[in-house]
Amino acid sequence: METILSTQNSRVKEWEKLKTKKGRRKTGLYLLEGRHLVSEALQSTAKIDYVVSTQEELDAVTFEVPTTNLVVISQKIAERLSDTVTTQGIFAIVQIPNQQRQIEKPVDQITGSWLFLDNIQDPGNIGTMVRTADAAGFVGVVFGKGTADIFNPKVQRAMQGSQFHIRLILGDLTTWAQSFQKAQIPVYGTELNPEAKSYQDIKRTQNFALIMGNEGNGMSEELLKLTTSNLYIPIKGQAESLNVAVAAGILMFSLKDI
Amino acid sequence: METILSTQNSRVKEWEKLKTKKGRRKTGLYLLEGRHLVSEALQSTAKIDYVVSTQEELDAVTFEVPTTNLVVISQKIAERLSDTVTTQGIFAIVQIPNQQRQIEKPVDQITGSWLFLDNIQDPGNIGTMVRTADAAGFVGVVFGKGTADIFNPKVQRAMQGSQFHIRLILGDLTTWAQSFQKAQIPVYGTELNPEAKSYQDIKRTQNFALIMGNEGNGMSEELLKLTTSNLYIPIKGQAESLNVAVAAGILMFSLKDI
Repeated sequence: METILSTQNSRVKEWEKLKTKKGRRKTGLYLLEGRHLVSEALQSTAKIDYVVSTQEELDAVTFEVPTTNLVVISQKIAERLSDTVTTQGIFAIVQIPNQQRQIEKPVDQITGSWLFLDNIQDPGNIGTMVRTADAAGFVGVVFGKGTADIFNPKVQRAMQGSQFHIRLILGDLTTWAQSFQKAQIPVYGTELNPEAKSYQDIKRTQNFALIMGNEGNGMSEELLKLTTSNLYIPIKGQAESLNVAVAAGILMFSLKDI
Repeated sequence: METILSTQNSRVKEWEKLKTKKGRRKTGLYLLEGRHLVSEALQSTAKIDYVVSTQEELDAVTFEVPTTNLVVISQKIAERLSDTVTTQGIFAIVQIPNQQRQIEKPVDQITGSWLFLDNIQDPGNIGTMVRTADAAGFVGVVFGKGTADIFNPKVQRAMQGSQFHIRLILGDLTTWAQSFQKAQIPVYGTELNPEAKSYQDIKRTQNFALIMGNEGNGMSEELLKLTTSNLYIPIKGQAESLNVAVAAGILMFSLKDI
């Protein structure tokens, strides 16, 4: 166990850089923040380089923190590393798994329900969709082009631990959709167009992919051509649309066989 | 039409105060931000004191802005008034309707579907739930004790215009629930307890109330006693819970008769 008290410490500066995509790419590490996430990481197979925490927080947590690779920091340093308004003061420096550093090919034997994220921008929406996919019993989430980084601190926080429960993959969604189609597994799009079907007319199934598109512009044209059907959620009131994470929740819980 | 260029202008300072609850209570005014919301407000019956905008934004908008009570401001002032990272530069100063300044009694003839918000903290969650209630064809949303203020800029923004489509009421949820029970209209709670029913076992209806509780602590004990049934969403994976706005979306779209 060691102690760092100066915000000018070179390792503190290194860790702070993990908030940026560049910093993560360079080191292959990412930063997890908060009691719940650090606890989940410790219970998972994630490779943790350091647990970094204020003494106050260490005294407060109810789970065990191994003292090897534990670094005690000051409140000031915690605030530097934090991405929240009021930090709990506990962090983990975690290795990005090899398979999440590169685009992954579609799985050979496709089973289960999958969520495809096409160019989704808002970290909170992304994290919430991963959390919901976990709750709905999905197998994995494929992060397509333009979708915010899996290891962005805001994305990590909104996932609330679901990053340790289901598969998160960087993938080329065109290749993935083609692979599902080839295996005769339905790929549902969510682009409003005249041929879109109400989601309520779709029979529940175990194996399928659901594509959610960009908050403002919807799904890419290319991907749209690769869908089995496009679904819409009938709007009854005057709202123009639903929040993408809410729409994804309604669809995931309605499409998946239970 | 007038022009204000100094951030030290007394009216700018007054408007800036509308970001706080205190400032809103003192003046009976609130601040709306962004193209979409200002456009919706102009089309609604809302009483608008001023439209405040940068010249650049005025040149860009596609809707008509009446020149009476139009105030042109500098980019610096827009940034002062803004609650966003990159402001569009257009605002409306709007009167808080009389009925939304005080606790309202339950409606006499209850019809339609209602959402009750019990001690919900996150402005984004609240706004998203109002937007979803609108999309699902709900009649109104009752803001109970502890729930963030209807006129909080973050709440207003997340509603995306639905504040002009459905009824938003400050209410004592106990009185409201009692009134629904008396009229034999179901009140659904969302507190996990051994007697909770799966939402999928509930028949769709037109007239009911759905209560969503605090993000961390759930519904209040008192309110729990006044529910017809408590509902839960079966979790299939390892996630501990759903985001409250996602859960509300799944329930609203599943409970309401279509």
